[in-house]
Amino acid sequence: MKLGFIGLGRMGAAMAANLVKVGHDVSVFNRTPGKSSPLIELGAHEAADIVGTCGGDAVITMLADDGAASDIAFGDGGLIAHLPKGAIHVSMSTISVALSKRLTQAHARAGQHYVAAPVFGRPDMAAAAKLFIVAAGDPATIETCQPLFRAMGQKAFPIGTEPSAANLVKLSGNFLMASAIEALGEAVALIGKAGIDRHAYIDLLTSSIFNAPVYKIYGGLIAQGKFEPAAFAAPLGYKDIRLALAAAESLRVPMPLGSLLHDRFLRILAQGGNHLDWSAIGGLAAQDAGDAPGMPTALMPSIR
Amino acid sequence: MKLGFIGLGRMGAAMAANLVKVGHDVSVFNRTPGKSSPLIELGAHEAADIVGTCGGDAVITMLADDGAASDIAFGDGGLIAHLPKGAIHVSMSTISVALSKRLTQAHARAGQHYVAAPVFGRPDMAAAAKLFIVAAGDPATIETCQPLFRAMGQKAFPIGTEPSAANLVKLSGNFLMASAIEALGEAVALIGKAGIDRHAYIDLLTSSIFNAPVYKIYGGLIAQGKFEPAAFAAPLGYKDIRLALAAAESLRVPMPLGSLLHDRFLRILAQGGNHLDWSAIGGLAAQDAGDAPGMPTALMPSIR
Amino acid sequence: MKLGFIGLGRMGAAMAANLVKVGHDVSVFNRTPGKSSPLIELGAHEAADIVGTCGGDAVITMLADDGAASDIAFGDGGLIAHLPKGAIHVSMSTISVALSKRLTQAHARAGQHYVAAPVFGRPDMAAAAKLFIVAAGDPATIETCQPLFRAMGQKAFPIGTEPSAANLVKLSGNFLMASAIEALGEAVALIGKAGIDRHAYIDLLTSSIFNAPVYKIYGGLIAQGKFEPAAFAAPLGYKDIRLALAAAESLRVPMPLGSLLHDRFLRILAQGGNHLDWSAIGGLAAQDAGDAPGMPTALMPSIR
Amino acid sequence: MKLGFIGLGRMGAAMAANLVKVGHDVSVFNRTPGKSSPLIELGAHEAADIVGTCGGDAVITMLADDGAASDIAFGDGGLIAHLPKGAIHVSMSTISVALSKRLTQAHARAGQHYVAAPVFGRPDMAAAAKLFIVAAGDPATIETCQPLFRAMGQKAFPIGTEPSAANLVKLSGNFLMASAIEALGEAVALIGKAGIDRHAYIDLLTSSIFNAPVYKIYGGLIAQGKFEPAAFAAPLGYKDIRLALAAAESLRVPMPLGSLLHDRFLRILAQGGNHLDWSAIGGLAAQDAGDAPGMPTALMPSIR
Repeated sequence: MKLGFIGLGRMGAAMAANLVKVGHDVSVFNRTPGKSSPLIELGAHEAADIVGTCGGDAVITMLADDGAASDIAFGDGGLIAHLPKGAIHVSMSTISVALSKRLTQAHARAGQHYVAAPVFGRPDMAAAAKLFIVAAGDPATIETCQPLFRAMGQKAFPIGTEPSAANLVKLSGNFLMASAIEALGEAVALIGKAGIDRHAYIDLLTSSIFNAPVYKIYGGLIAQGKFEPAAFAAPLGYKDIRLALAAAESLRVPMPLGSLLHDRFLRILAQGGNHLDWSAIGGLAAQDAGDAPGMPTALMPSIR
Repeated sequence: MKLGFIGLGRMGAAMAANLVKVGHDVSVFNRTPGKSSPLIELGAHEAADIVGTCGGDAVITMLADDGAASDIAFGDGGLIAHLPKGAIHVSMSTISVALSKRLTQAHARAGQHYVAAPVFGRPDMAAAAKLFIVAAGDPATIETCQPLFRAMGQKAFPIGTEPSAANLVKLSGNFLMASAIEALGEAVALIGKAGIDRHAYIDLLTSSIFNAPVYKIYGGLIAQGKFEPAAFAAPLGYKDIRLALAAAESLRVPMPLGSLLHDRFLRILAQGGNHLDWSAIGGLAAQDAGDAPGMPTALMPSIR
Repeated sequence: MKLGFIGLGRMGAAMAANLVKVGHDVSVFNRTPGKSSPLIELGAHEAADIVGTCGGDAVITMLADDGAASDIAFGDGGLIAHLPKGAIHVSMSTISVALSKRLTQAHARAGQHYVAAPVFGRPDMAAAAKLFIVAAGDPATIETCQPLFRAMGQKAFPIGTEPSAANLVKLSGNFLMASAIEALGEAVALIGKAGIDRHAYIDLLTSSIFNAPVYKIYGGLIAQGKFEPAAFAAPLGYKDIRLALAAAESLRVPMPLGSLLHDRFLRILAQGGNHLDWSAIGGLAAQDAGDAPGMPTALMPSIR
Repeated sequence: MKLGFIGLGRMGAAMAANLVKVGHDVSVFNRTPGKSSPLIELGAHEAADIVGTCGGDAVITMLADDGAASDIAFGDGGLIAHLPKGAIHVSMSTISVALSKRLTQAHARAGQHYVAAPVFGRPDMAAAAKLFIVAAGDPATIETCQPLFRAMGQKAFPIGTEPSAANLVKLSGNFLMASAIEALGEAVALIGKAGIDRHAYIDLLTSSIFNAPVYKIYGGLIAQGKFEPAAFAAPLGYKDIRLALAAAESLRVPMPLGSLLHDRFLRILAQGGNHLDWSAIGGLAAQDAGDAPGMPTALMPSIR
């Protein structure tokens, strides 16, 4: 297929590369220049602007947040103004339910198709084409996108015809992951202060009843008290919990554990932890217990 | 080995049966009579009292709570008074850290060995000899117990020389499971009220990043809103969270998610849910959202 | 002084009346017509639109929320476009810190003065000119407004030169009140379920260490389980807690009790309690305890 | 009346002195010697042991906790063994509901009267005979005690015939105070980080809608960030919240704000704050916000 791809961060660059590798004709664009060279070497074309990505069957976007996704889509030089009638916007960014609904309406008015297809997976999974893709939108359009999903992920899950459903599922999945991190943080604080070996504990759990990658990856980081470098930074985790809670507000669904996570992330940011991995919230229980191995001093409250 | 086994509830009966099946000579006892017949048929001996289980190398106990475990161990007719010097008490019940410490000291004073070896797994896993066993105590004693653990479980994890460490690990594991239940409850309330299919959602999650049995089992129950019959009843879940928090108090470890779970369980009990599975706490978020499929009316607050 | 007054709800109408009574020349306007007759009878002038309130020294606004306050201020027919240079906008609505900052900048650019002066007090206190007024802005401008504050309230408290400081103080005050309501709700649920007389309990507390009106008013409502008619409706309470938390997010201040209140209000709204007084959150603890006298059935979760 | 008085800490000594001053014949006893001299000078008699306090109409106890109160009452040399039939035990300590019930039964079996009469007020109020006394028990017995209550307090509130009701009311009152402290802590963290003067803020609140002593006293301490010396130490506050939650567990009343307070106190203790006033929990919100003036370094988490 002839494609555009906008957003060449760590996730997007890996995803675009996988599309090129299986033979798609991809024009790539990133607002901050200097990200496209490796893709050009693989055979992608460089687009000078958003318009330059709009000449084919579909444009895929993989952007940092609502602000970026909104800037790319709306306005004179944006996707909605330039995508041909009948073309598809495959929005794979983690964005709000509200923005996804706005995009759905705007593309429909412009005679374009819109599919929300956010992903689960860290950059290494993106590079290995092992992402899990959650897709929602018109079934025929999703069917058209399946070859793209197969190039980028190990599996695509259709979850309905309303695109924003996919965004809500993605946000709720990040909520579930952050919940597991908080739970691990409290459990490790508890057994660690009792003198039990933290790593042996995580090995035990993840070799038995908690044998999911989430527990292995984050349990290991928490046992080690090592939250940098960030694979997924704390401000992004905070953003996603806020978007989940914003959707919960609209739907009138109280989420007390969501609120706890919100406050945990806010505390990390308040204490200078913007550079840390989002799993740093899993170090706060040990900090509260006065027993925080490896918590960087940047996170210690300042004294006047 | 010549063994005693005390506590023939659903878990204990299945575990004792597996010991008999691999050829151990097992004398069984239950305080409430009428539980031993299937085991006698398999080849176990019936003991008339605790003393009658104390003639061999080890006695295994699998009891409901601290009260039962304490009654069996202490007092004139109890294990500590009658177990031979050098024999082993293998305590597999989920009991408090504090009681485990008392038992450690009492058995040591009596010249007996004490191993704490609580298990992860529901009755079906006990029947299939698939339990995960967490063992702590003197290494030589644990080594002696390995054939017993192999008969009852798929794997035994040594976690230190202080028996109570195993109890704390078990309690923290139940805390982690209850945390996953609460997180699932909030996530399902959120996506369910948005009109997304609850079962498709759980399938999606547990086919991708949350592929652990905990998420499959409890996610399914929550999606269905089906909390009875109980495989592990809410009062037992409440008990375990209280024991985890009691240990956390002694160690001075604040656990805000633990406190949230405590209040969730208390609410289930307050509203008449003693007969429900502990995963019923996963129905409260939907109840709070005014959108609770399948929540039994017994859980609805009464009006005066 | 020659004044405009915009916003003739229960609070605004009473405040405007007090300004007229002490002799000010007041032109009144309300977007929904039919609210001005009693004021006209007292001697106020009716303004046909916002422009009609802008002919004097100051315009006072008392509006329901950010949306209304923003509509009145911005746009072609708004205050900023029509207030004379040097005139004062006295914004007494409970609005967000963010909107107050926008208004500060917009009025400054237009050569106008802006004072934020939100109030504490229910409609009966407004009618009795007993409001407490929190004022922030340029000191000279606040000085000019003192006669107005004296006509409407029992005391005005200057709290700095940055107008949004007054809005934050107001929001934090509502947070403190809601916190007292939640605490009373839990305490009354506790002693009530123990069989202690709820009214005697509130009398005892408010005759001794909790002798503030907040505890008397809300303690009485909670003891009675009577949350309608609403003096200050639950959606308004929810709005104010959200605005307080929004300010806390911007400032990076985790507020766990604020989050608890947020979830309590959301639950009231989810369960159909829009018509209830905001103190209805004080009935939820008793509901959770299965012991909720007077909780309207509208608040009971529906069963499918 | 001829009285015994046991427990001569800061509160008890002041209360006993007031009884002596109005002419009662008081025999005083304290387990740790050296506390009675000022009382002897006032005219009290020194009792050598508990028995020595049991020769009159009533014995008043004012002890630190359940442990002390239990030791004094039970056992061979205790109150229950030595108080004459028909005499009264006036228990003014802050103890658990469970212990109060045990005392009620034990005294009844011994033919003695038991009144629970815990107090609200700090040592300065005890010295000024300004305590608020919450009394429960047999009405005739409470009537007999009224002259004693008048000597020690400004008002006595009867709250039922079941003595433990008074204890529950006292515990719930401390819960309400701790709730106000937490709320003030979050509010002051919020406005303080926005640059608003903390002291001006507390003055404003306590001159208007929050004109109760609790807000004045604790608001001032929190604004100042000054939590030592302790007038009521953090471990005592923790104890009382735990007793309130223990009663709530027995009654099946979930108290989420109570749980939050529990975790706040536990954190203070975990971080070395045993010597601080219980209002130190009001400093934690500012600590979480990275903006904690005056928080002692002893409360900063240690780094390994």
